[in-house]
Amino acid sequence: MRKLVAEALGTFWLVLGGCGSAVLSGRFPELGIGILGISLAFGLAVVSGAYALGPISGGHFNPAVTVGLWAGGRFRGADVPGYIAAQVAGAIAGAGILYMIASGGPGFDPATARLGSNGYGEFSPGKYSLLAGVVSEVTTTAVFLVVILGATHRRAPGAFGGLVIGLTLVLIHLLTIPVTGTSVNPARSTGPALYVGGAALQQLWLFWVAPLAGALVGGYAYRALWETESEPVVTGQAHA
Amino acid sequence: MRKLVAEALGTFWLVLGGCGSAVLSGRFPELGIGILGISLAFGLAVVSGAYALGPISGGHFNPAVTVGLWAGGRFRGADVPGYIAAQVAGAIAGAGILYMIASGGPGFDPATARLGSNGYGEFSPGKYSLLAGVVSEVTTTAVFLVVILGATHRRAPGAFGGLVIGLTLVLIHLLTIPVTGTSVNPARSTGPALYVGGAALQQLWLFWVAPLAGALVGGYAYRALWETESEPVVTGQAHA
Amino acid sequence: MRKLVAEALGTFWLVLGGCGSAVLSGRFPELGIGILGISLAFGLAVVSGAYALGPISGGHFNPAVTVGLWAGGRFRGADVPGYIAAQVAGAIAGAGILYMIASGGPGFDPATARLGSNGYGEFSPGKYSLLAGVVSEVTTTAVFLVVILGATHRRAPGAFGGLVIGLTLVLIHLLTIPVTGTSVNPARSTGPALYVGGAALQQLWLFWVAPLAGALVGGYAYRALWETESEPVVTGQAHA
Amino acid sequence: MRKLVAEALGTFWLVLGGCGSAVLSGRFPELGIGILGISLAFGLAVVSGAYALGPISGGHFNPAVTVGLWAGGRFRGADVPGYIAAQVAGAIAGAGILYMIASGGPGFDPATARLGSNGYGEFSPGKYSLLAGVVSEVTTTAVFLVVILGATHRRAPGAFGGLVIGLTLVLIHLLTIPVTGTSVNPARSTGPALYVGGAALQQLWLFWVAPLAGALVGGYAYRALWETESEPVVTGQAHA
Repeated sequence: MRKLVAEALGTFWLVLGGCGSAVLSGRFPELGIGILGISLAFGLAVVSGAYALGPISGGHFNPAVTVGLWAGGRFRGADVPGYIAAQVAGAIAGAGILYMIASGGPGFDPATARLGSNGYGEFSPGKYSLLAGVVSEVTTTAVFLVVILGATHRRAPGAFGGLVIGLTLVLIHLLTIPVTGTSVNPARSTGPALYVGGAALQQLWLFWVAPLAGALVGGYAYRALWETESEPVVTGQAHA
Repeated sequence: MRKLVAEALGTFWLVLGGCGSAVLSGRFPELGIGILGISLAFGLAVVSGAYALGPISGGHFNPAVTVGLWAGGRFRGADVPGYIAAQVAGAIAGAGILYMIASGGPGFDPATARLGSNGYGEFSPGKYSLLAGVVSEVTTTAVFLVVILGATHRRAPGAFGGLVIGLTLVLIHLLTIPVTGTSVNPARSTGPALYVGGAALQQLWLFWVAPLAGALVGGYAYRALWETESEPVVTGQAHA
Repeated sequence: MRKLVAEALGTFWLVLGGCGSAVLSGRFPELGIGILGISLAFGLAVVSGAYALGPISGGHFNPAVTVGLWAGGRFRGADVPGYIAAQVAGAIAGAGILYMIASGGPGFDPATARLGSNGYGEFSPGKYSLLAGVVSEVTTTAVFLVVILGATHRRAPGAFGGLVIGLTLVLIHLLTIPVTGTSVNPARSTGPALYVGGAALQQLWLFWVAPLAGALVGGYAYRALWETESEPVVTGQAHA
Repeated sequence: MRKLVAEALGTFWLVLGGCGSAVLSGRFPELGIGILGISLAFGLAVVSGAYALGPISGGHFNPAVTVGLWAGGRFRGADVPGYIAAQVAGAIAGAGILYMIASGGPGFDPATARLGSNGYGEFSPGKYSLLAGVVSEVTTTAVFLVVILGATHRRAPGAFGGLVIGLTLVLIHLLTIPVTGTSVNPARSTGPALYVGGAALQQLWLFWVAPLAGALVGGYAYRALWETESEPVVTGQAHA
């Protein structure tokens, strides 16, 4: 139960911190943080969650990470559904608090607010096609899992895991925000979409399918690459 | 006594470095650092103070952190008032040096200088309401304390504590500068307000009440989440 | 074989993440990441690869690093050709995926796409001369190798190696993107050039010659500076 | 002798990387890195030098650091002049290579090139007064030394020293670039001034006097704060 609370809290913070920085500070007149600042916000949310909550739950905060760790032989299948439910619940709460803060600003219009939701085609920030979105999300999620599994492998300097994983998420955002707004995390996409509705909700399927597919690719690639060396299954430890 | 000097010095640096970067470099023509650079400045001030002074005083530099560590069972109540007094004194000194430097530039007008003070409503950078400011400050301070307490817990890789806490403060600023200018630290808000007066002083109550309330929430949440595992009370060690 | 796959994968990620961020996010309207964000992208790609794949292959991802490690007495000459071939193959794959994503955006024109390729003279981002490009690439690659060899030396705090090397690559990009677009890595230059053709391909020789020359300078300087202390030859461990 | 070469090389890199990023990339059209990127460049140069060369010479790269370490009881007085000479030589070489690269770009005019030199009054980037420059340089150099001495104290997590010191230098630049262009390092100021001449050379005295005065304040403050605990004198180890 403590693990599920930790996963919910970490995902709450990821959505509030990441999507929130995009919504509140991204285009702030003159001083806005742009794609670079938004990218840092998502990555730093993972850094803080990994070190603060990682020792409790492993610090996944992302259904694709949970599934990829399972595919990589490092997480028990029986624990996957509970983790994913907790992550989605946390993401919805994070988007809710963000909605509350954002609606206290001038010119907030519920009909046009995007709350950091993801999209493709007409709803991609840079109007990238569905195919570009699929390639982008599958590829980056696969690399993300290879990094997560490798950087937390017992042969890697374990204490750096959370920092490296967060910085990798910064890079993924620097690369793909123009394409899809960057998901690689179905829970992070679901939270805002539920409040925004419309296209964000209609396109939400992609941000479940592509990250989960990428995570499976990454998890199996990791196993092949590391030859698994008969590691024991460890429950939930993505970060040391 | 050495602990109080360390707390005063660290808070001095936080206010000079953080508020100073906002005042001097935030809107510098063409090259200004914007919200992203200001956020980094506050976080890096904590990083440097945590590693330089943390071994002496624990490196709180913030009444909300001191109170939250007490609520989390990691700091003695009897030491709280002294720490807070030292932090406020350091913040006033930091704002004073900042005033001295800023007044040496062209076009400095004491009547309109804000010195990085915090505000809500009309005095919020993005004109966010009082309610948005309360939700923002309480929520982020609570998360901040969960991160501080978790990342310095004996089961976390302790040497990363100061870095993780500083990066978390970067994220909090990326998120909430448009809302309140970001306090989460009553001392940091008090320093500039004393020089600026007017609205900054009238609204100062919020930046004591909300961060302290958030810190209590965070401290108790941490205890519940970690089930405290009968840890001994350690005087002042927020950072390892 | 696992080592070669790791080198290919890491170089794939360096080209996709670094060049990709430049192409997709560099000039994105209003929110673009500019030279600072592009620099971070290249450096963070190395950070993630170093910790995820370094324990397997040493994490070179760059023919100049492989040659410089050999010159510095830390890598076997017999392994150099295989490593370089794998790096070039990975770079070509990374540029291919980038091409696929970029071509899914509006206004993509294969004839003018640069895909993050390097250049000098008329094709330098800032129109810097061939001589400036040579000085820039040789000098920064030499320093890069001194940093790589020094920061992974057994007397340095080894676990920081990957982070320090990545941050050094950030700095090299901050410094030389206007001059050549920053190579210091022949594989990274080759990937995009093969898709772009034309001037990128004609000028590619410089981005093999100058980084390799700089790497030899750096490798031998390191040996002289550290007096080598009769270290054993270690296969491929650039990162701990 | 190896120590002096290491100090020269590190200061070379600091001037080339820091001043060079300012000159080449600071105002690059559209994509320029601004004060934030320039600040990062100086800090990252110290990070790379500290981990690569720190085990050899202690990684000072700055006469004020050398003098402050001596004042703090952590460096032998007899070694101070040699270190300072090596640092100045390295800085001159760094500015020379920068001059060579910069002069290969279009529109380079030796008469107006500043090469990242420091100044006050009319030659301050933000036109800050001499007094503001003095307060700014003395205060930040004093804090810098307290951080250096504290973060490398045997009770601090030593391996983080180089990172923390570099990030502190980032913060100092974020804060004071508008005031003086940020020196806190007489060698870094001397290198460009020798090529630029004129006002840069006439004002150079301040960037020796103020940083050295601040370093003495910081060194003695550190001794008082840490009560020195009878530490042995260690030659040159600013970084662990």
